Amino acid sequence: MGHGTNRVEDMSSPNNGTALAATAATTAGETIVEIHSVCLPPKKTVFQKLRKRVADVFFPDDPLGKFKNQTWRNRAILGLQSLFPIFTWGSQYDLKLFWSDVVSGLTIASLAIPQGISYAKLANLPPIVGLYSSFVPPLIYSVLGSSRHLAVGPVSIASLVMGSMLSESVSPTQESILYLKLAFTSTFFAGLFQASLGLLRLGFVIDFLSKATLVGFTAGAAVIVSLQQLKGLLGIVHFTGKMQFIPVMSSVFNHRSEWSWETIVMGIGFLSILLTTRHISMRKPKLFWISAASPLASVIISTLLVFLIRSKTHAISYIGHLPKGLNPPSSNMLYFSGTHLALAIKTGIITGILSLTEGIAVGRTFASLKNYQVNGNKEMMAIGFMNMAGSCTSCYVTTGSFSRSAVNYNAGAKTAVSNIVMASAVLVTLLFLMPLFYYTPNVILAAIILTAVIGLIDYQAAYKLWKVDKFDFFTCMCSFFGVLFVSVPLGLAIAVGVSVMKILLNVTRPNTIEFGNIRGTEIYQSLGRYREASRIPGFLILAIESPIYFANSTYLQERILRWTREEETRVKENNGSTLKCIILDMTAVSSIDTSGLEAVFELRRRLEKQSLQLVLVNPVGSVMEKLHKSKIVESLGLSGLYLTVGEAVADLSSTWKAHGQP
Amino acid sequence: MGHGTNRVEDMSSPNNGTALAATAATTAGETIVEIHSVCLPPKKTVFQKLRKRVADVFFPDDPLGKFKNQTWRNRAILGLQSLFPIFTWGSQYDLKLFWSDVVSGLTIASLAIPQGISYAKLANLPPIVGLYSSFVPPLIYSVLGSSRHLAVGPVSIASLVMGSMLSESVSPTQESILYLKLAFTSTFFAGLFQASLGLLRLGFVIDFLSKATLVGFTAGAAVIVSLQQLKGLLGIVHFTGKMQFIPVMSSVFNHRSEWSWETIVMGIGFLSILLTTRHISMRKPKLFWISAASPLASVIISTLLVFLIRSKTHAISYIGHLPKGLNPPSSNMLYFSGTHLALAIKTGIITGILSLTEGIAVGRTFASLKNYQVNGNKEMMAIGFMNMAGSCTSCYVTTGSFSRSAVNYNAGAKTAVSNIVMASAVLVTLLFLMPLFYYTPNVILAAIILTAVIGLIDYQAAYKLWKVDKFDFFTCMCSFFGVLFVSVPLGLAIAVGVSVMKILLNVTRPNTIEFGNIRGTEIYQSLGRYREASRIPGFLILAIESPIYFANSTYLQERILRWTREEETRVKENNGSTLKCIILDMTAVSSIDTSGLEAVFELRRRLEKQSLQLVLVNPVGSVMEKLHKSKIVESLGLSGLYLTVGEAVADLSSTWKAHGQP
Repeated sequence: MGHGTNRVEDMSSPNNGTALAATAATTAGETIVEIHSVCLPPKKTVFQKLRKRVADVFFPDDPLGKFKNQTWRNRAILGLQSLFPIFTWGSQYDLKLFWSDVVSGLTIASLAIPQGISYAKLANLPPIVGLYSSFVPPLIYSVLGSSRHLAVGPVSIASLVMGSMLSESVSPTQESILYLKLAFTSTFFAGLFQASLGLLRLGFVIDFLSKATLVGFTAGAAVIVSLQQLKGLLGIVHFTGKMQFIPVMSSVFNHRSEWSWETIVMGIGFLSILLTTRHISMRKPKLFWISAASPLASVIISTLLVFLIRSKTHAISYIGHLPKGLNPPSSNMLYFSGTHLALAIKTGIITGILSLTEGIAVGRTFASLKNYQVNGNKEMMAIGFMNMAGSCTSCYVTTGSFSRSAVNYNAGAKTAVSNIVMASAVLVTLLFLMPLFYYTPNVILAAIILTAVIGLIDYQAAYKLWKVDKFDFFTCMCSFFGVLFVSVPLGLAIAVGVSVMKILLNVTRPNTIEFGNIRGTEIYQSLGRYREASRIPGFLILAIESPIYFANSTYLQERILRWTREEETRVKENNGSTLKCIILDMTAVSSIDTSGLEAVFELRRRLEKQSLQLVLVNPVGSVMEKLHKSKIVESLGLSGLYLTVGEAVADLSSTWKAHGQP
Repeated sequence: MGHGTNRVEDMSSPNNGTALAATAATTAGETIVEIHSVCLPPKKTVFQKLRKRVADVFFPDDPLGKFKNQTWRNRAILGLQSLFPIFTWGSQYDLKLFWSDVVSGLTIASLAIPQGISYAKLANLPPIVGLYSSFVPPLIYSVLGSSRHLAVGPVSIASLVMGSMLSESVSPTQESILYLKLAFTSTFFAGLFQASLGLLRLGFVIDFLSKATLVGFTAGAAVIVSLQQLKGLLGIVHFTGKMQFIPVMSSVFNHRSEWSWETIVMGIGFLSILLTTRHISMRKPKLFWISAASPLASVIISTLLVFLIRSKTHAISYIGHLPKGLNPPSSNMLYFSGTHLALAIKTGIITGILSLTEGIAVGRTFASLKNYQVNGNKEMMAIGFMNMAGSCTSCYVTTGSFSRSAVNYNAGAKTAVSNIVMASAVLVTLLFLMPLFYYTPNVILAAIILTAVIGLIDYQAAYKLWKVDKFDFFTCMCSFFGVLFVSVPLGLAIAVGVSVMKILLNVTRPNTIEFGNIRGTEIYQSLGRYREASRIPGFLILAIESPIYFANSTYLQERILRWTREEETRVKENNGSTLKCIILDMTAVSSIDTSGLEAVFELRRRLEKQSLQLVLVNPVGSVMEKLHKSKIVESLGLSGLYLTVGEAVADLSSTWKAHGQP
């Protein structure tokens, strides 16, 4: 064994080009053990390390990479393209693509118009705001956005959340102007927040809404939305403004006198049509147009029906007058001071993060199907700017809707032009067709919402969570019941808190696993898992499966000492050879801090008092560097650090033999 | 290669006892590759897993382990011993041990009496409360505690924090009764919190106060305490109740007219004596008794001095009348309702956690020096019960003091009896000597506090943090400046927040490292670190250094795709052989959740579209189980899972050769 050379090699020092040259061990005179030294990583200054870390955290996608080795002209073009993705495909756009986009654009318009009106009602806003929001934001997104299939407009979850949060403080009926002002202001802050996340490259914030959280949250919100539609379906006039399960259900049953059979009949009729068409399209994706066309068809038929029977009954409530014309400017309605500002900011941030998560997830889903990239940070800026612009033109929070994007994709959309076509269709509606909605019954809007949100209750995903990962299922249930029984923002906060707690708990109580050698190989694996693995007499080999941090350093130290005690008892009971060496496999210790270093040092000291040697195997670069800086490598001695478990066992055994130990 | 057998082995199924039997690969006809299958861990029910996890999290020390295989009588004795550690050493106690304990007990009493009076003033409490707190809690600790060297009583940091938090809402001079009530109530909640942490085995909560945080926090608090002593040292009468740097300094300089030269002369004189004796004892630990005796000596001398010159000057303020007699009961002063309850609970929790951290750290330090174990959870209960009992007997928060425990250790304390001796000395003082403190000048108390806290500014530890771990140094500075300029609880919260943020950031943006083969070996190591490592044509080998969670699954997926793009560009530039396979070394992936599984699945799908194969190597037990449950193992195919990187490379290469690929 190379006792003569210090086996910690420093790659940056000039005279050890052969740092890793294998040294043949001849101490024992009988076994030849090949030993490889453990390298220090190349030296870097604090600034270089910080720069690399910042690049890893904020620029994982290397946004400036493509600008390298380019002429200035190309750089300008690339820059323009990355600011406005429309330039990437604009030049190759032709009539064939346009035709696909027109077909898909008109298809989603037929969905967007009834859904826009319905979702605005969900947010307690005038129905016309839903149409305004289906006009300006899609136009802006088509220029800035990088997804080719995203269909932009109001969505159910964000509408519900905005409606629920604002109406808890301000009544949408009695203080309708203030409510509208707050909705626009929240939209502005939602956009500002979304754009800032993108600009500051803090996109990982939305990763903290895990899929498990979202499955539960969406299902909870969908249940609440569905129950609220009972108001429209049963024709109830006085209904709670609250969003929790219990007040909604008591509202339904306390107002049984207001139930109107005409409304119920009409509601159930159209609901069955909508659900049936949805079911057909889900079975045969080629027939997507059936479910895409049915909402608009239902609106037209029900409006005609109400118009025809308008003199016979007044039991069925309808929309009434809607103003004609384009989006009026609303920048004067933004509200930057006063008592409700905090509410508007909070609502903005929560609806902002939810709509962002939905938009990006939808964009990624369809990008992955067609194998193109959607850049998260750019999408955030696109969605953010679109909402900020929207808040100044009478729009509320919008994002990419999953259901409409799916229709867009199935209808053959090729580029963001389908959004422009859709916006044009909405424009025509706003300018000329508004009076036709006068007799549209509210019950049909409730049926449309119900059909849309029922698909959000993804019980199959929840079942899969249960099967694969019980803890994820628990998170999912936390957010589901939190939203249903507590409140929308609190339910979300509980689920995120539970997810973060799980990470911290895993860090605080990491696994340590006892390794053994697999007969006839150099492989060391878990004794509990591989029956072929067996202990090596005299050694206790432990793998640590976590970084060593302040949060777990005491625990790990105590746990390793307990492993040692237990091993010694085991050896004594079986009359095995005495334990002499503890080998810690550090492969999975991805980082260490000063508390961790101190724990390793203290562990070595305590084991030494019991005449046990501590050996570290394969520490990763950053850990090795810190072990070296804190002088622990020196304190471990020459035979305290190896590159593989096999080499450590072989070398130490041969040394013991050479010294005549058993 | 064993294409005929499914290489995912299930240890629980009966008919594969030779799950790991090596299978010789003969496909290529020329190379023989030994392949080992990846095992599933033995099957466990959800309940078994939960039980194991709960045991790992809450009972890492296996507290019931020693009760196994014992007679009922022994179990009863062991149980008694673990409840009252005094029974473990009580039977072997003899006169020699007792003599050591008497000497050390009297030594720490001579420190505890002046420090008790001083620290009570630091908490804005009457000086006598400091003596009460040095009587009851040490008695209780000596029965319940497991440390043999801990000297129990009031400590500077907890006193400062309690004083600072309570006096922000309640004036200790104008509402002195309410203030006293709140102090006792906070002490009660501190004890309740500490005991609950121990009972519920949630001791890991205190691990979140990392050493780096504590170094900064303690130094910041010590600076504030020192500056506040300028009040006593300069003889200022009107002084701010606030604890931040700026108000304290402006108090000092705005009241220059109140400075009294007699006080200043006396203060500087005794301060120099105290600091010199402290310096001598630090240089020569054998002379510990010099610094141990000097506070009491200073008190006696200064009291005599003031007594002698009492008719000549009134510039030097002194303590005045102190009531004689034992601790009066104070359970009737506890305060469980009203406006200040929240403040009392908050103060209790913060002083509780700080004093617990100090007590346990001190206990562990001396236990490690004498090689015995201090059980964290038991210590928490001991300290907790001692504070709860203290709150009913006119004591405020107490714990093990570092400085007095060091003196105790150096003076040769052998068991907790030294605490009983100390309490007896305090008892004598309380019963008979109180009138002697009448003329003790306040300036001497300030000098004693200053000498005690100046040692808490551990600039060497801070320098070591800077050298070894820049981020830990940053945490340290956050808590230092947070305490100094913002407030005590906020400074602490900021530092803990920063520490937790670091964990989350490391999880959110984990390292991926490109591996290469070290020539002539089966070892695969980082290309950036080992110059001897070289790429294998056709393969991209990546090691993932973190669990795969919702918080990083998208990032990892994107990052691996970027690695692939970069590798393909590199290959193209160097005319190397085409990239065909991405190998992910999962050794360090200690766990995975459903988002992570989805990311792996999606990654496989996207790589497949680019005709690239994804291979996983050595997933740990729990990860393997989830990969299996979520059917990803099946989707990877037969050659998508290997036990070592070497086997994967060898097997795939030989398969490619056999199929005539380059």
